[in-house]
Amino acid sequence: MRRAFNFSAGPATLPVPVLERAAAEMLDWHGSGIGVMEMSHRGREFGEIFERCEARLRELLAVPANYKVLFMQGGALAENAILPLNLSRGGVVDHVLTGSWSKKSAKEAARYCDARVAASNELDTAPHHRSLPVPASWRLSPGASYVHLCSNETIDGLEFHEVPDLRALGSDAPLVIDCSSHLASRPIDWSRVAVAYGGAQKNIGPAGLTLVFVREDLLGHALAACPSAFDYSVVAANGSMYNTPPTWAIYVAGLVFDWLAEQGGVEAIERRNIEKAALLYAAIDGSGGFYRNPVDLGCRSRMNVPFFAHDERLHAPFVESAAARGLVQLKGHKSVGGLRASIYNAMPLEGVQALVSHMQEFAASHG
Amino acid sequence: MRRAFNFSAGPATLPVPVLERAAAEMLDWHGSGIGVMEMSHRGREFGEIFERCEARLRELLAVPANYKVLFMQGGALAENAILPLNLSRGGVVDHVLTGSWSKKSAKEAARYCDARVAASNELDTAPHHRSLPVPASWRLSPGASYVHLCSNETIDGLEFHEVPDLRALGSDAPLVIDCSSHLASRPIDWSRVAVAYGGAQKNIGPAGLTLVFVREDLLGHALAACPSAFDYSVVAANGSMYNTPPTWAIYVAGLVFDWLAEQGGVEAIERRNIEKAALLYAAIDGSGGFYRNPVDLGCRSRMNVPFFAHDERLHAPFVESAAARGLVQLKGHKSVGGLRASIYNAMPLEGVQALVSHMQEFAASHG
Repeated sequence: MRRAFNFSAGPATLPVPVLERAAAEMLDWHGSGIGVMEMSHRGREFGEIFERCEARLRELLAVPANYKVLFMQGGALAENAILPLNLSRGGVVDHVLTGSWSKKSAKEAARYCDARVAASNELDTAPHHRSLPVPASWRLSPGASYVHLCSNETIDGLEFHEVPDLRALGSDAPLVIDCSSHLASRPIDWSRVAVAYGGAQKNIGPAGLTLVFVREDLLGHALAACPSAFDYSVVAANGSMYNTPPTWAIYVAGLVFDWLAEQGGVEAIERRNIEKAALLYAAIDGSGGFYRNPVDLGCRSRMNVPFFAHDERLHAPFVESAAARGLVQLKGHKSVGGLRASIYNAMPLEGVQALVSHMQEFAASHG
Repeated sequence: MRRAFNFSAGPATLPVPVLERAAAEMLDWHGSGIGVMEMSHRGREFGEIFERCEARLRELLAVPANYKVLFMQGGALAENAILPLNLSRGGVVDHVLTGSWSKKSAKEAARYCDARVAASNELDTAPHHRSLPVPASWRLSPGASYVHLCSNETIDGLEFHEVPDLRALGSDAPLVIDCSSHLASRPIDWSRVAVAYGGAQKNIGPAGLTLVFVREDLLGHALAACPSAFDYSVVAANGSMYNTPPTWAIYVAGLVFDWLAEQGGVEAIERRNIEKAALLYAAIDGSGGFYRNPVDLGCRSRMNVPFFAHDERLHAPFVESAAARGLVQLKGHKSVGGLRASIYNAMPLEGVQALVSHMQEFAASHG
């Protein structure tokens, strides 16, 4: 077997030790005689798995005691509705539009409340969003139930390197971040973030698990139309077991958290992520125009790196020749085209080095 | 390693060959160099897995071409809201109450429409529902958007051995069945069933996948409050990939469907399920009153068999002594107490035989 370096934007590459352990325990978890997929979610064995997973996650991200961690389903797209159903109170909410995902969030929220655009980068050169609107320019609504932003735009490759401080902007609204594609890649500043949510299928585990971190004082105001299984208060009161949780995904997430702790934790992985991203952007910027990344330096994503060859006819042969040497899933998202390398926590530095080598050799042979 | 016989009501036991294959392919699916959890849901490899899974399922259950199969998330409890959001049109719906799960469905539906009780077995001796209301006695509402029933009550151990024919009752309303805990254990009569839904974690695969079968002519009437990710029309139009589907659970479900086909298909497994259930009920009924099952003969579940010792103080030692010989998860649901053996497709006859032997020995030593 030859493992590929997998640059998929999600579901995404997982650490080899995690996969090996999941395989080894498949038929018999810790001598129980049954596998994790076969365990009652209310049994002692899964209880251990669940508690360890949540404790590890809280420790890794330094989640304050007054935040609930909810293990939900449906991904960030479902959460785009579940969030305003729980927190909008049917009033005004502010959205910061920075790319594909934040726009979807705002569009869905508008079905449940008065969703306003506080800021937008839509005037950036289409189809590429290049910049993030400067927080000082945001038009925040007085009395908004919350302010929503996507802290890492997976398709456009933009990342808030620092989450804005709403209080410094004169707002006391809770800040909600969709952090799907960089969750657990760096610390979260909980003094600025009231709610964070994300699908697991980037840095955390299999698709089908959604993590929601919510400050307790925001609970208890769901709209009447909110399904019980998606009511944050109901989910919290039942320890994420009102409905049967995605047990296997939670187990794998727990193994990933163990692995992350072994890597030195989130601060350590952030340093490696910055190093990996710097290497890749340097290869793009130093290619003499063969490759380009359209995003402003100050907001380039450290997770998702879209790039384009100077001639778009080169994209298909690039992807093909990369796959031939075990570098897979490098095609750009269909909405923007080009190429994209997602370099999540589990992508080793060696994978990025191999990609850079391929980029250089490809440029040399197609220059 | 010693595999236990696992009688969990769900998540539940899976076939050993399925687990072995999932373990073997964990790091490298079919030479792709990546595992299934790491695949983009839009890539060629997962596309193959998904298509094969759906095709197998359609074949096994003889799903007509005018029914969509939707791969969703949130389990049957979420579906209890998603269903009326999609199909009630805010009008009248009829519910048949037969136990714990059907009551939850009716309660949740009442938040979205005029949910009426067409029939109920609530007058059965509490806390045990013993019987199913005879269809001829149902009070069906003219013009109801649909009639809902739970075709197998997991906690109470009641099963409709035959799904009622609403047309014979003078109704042309679509019949909707929550068939979570016996889905794929027997054929579905699609001439009587317009919509069927169920969580995967009984007969099909890991928790976190919900299957919804819906007749196409019912699509397109979602209420405004229905989240896009749970709008059947949106899910159908996007081939269950509007949001990222639970890819691993779909893969395992596909392996289970392959296994089921190797067993001879759904008709063959139904025969084995009837045989297994008959063996277990015979042991209960033939115990001279040591054990009892409160359900009427004509509606005893072939999947979930609750039973009670003549002295409730015997339940804990029964569970403990059973576990000591590798028969696990036999404790009854907390709402009814006692004992329960769930004997889904993947429980071999040998498991039921071992349970029956234990029951007999336990009775002999505690008689």
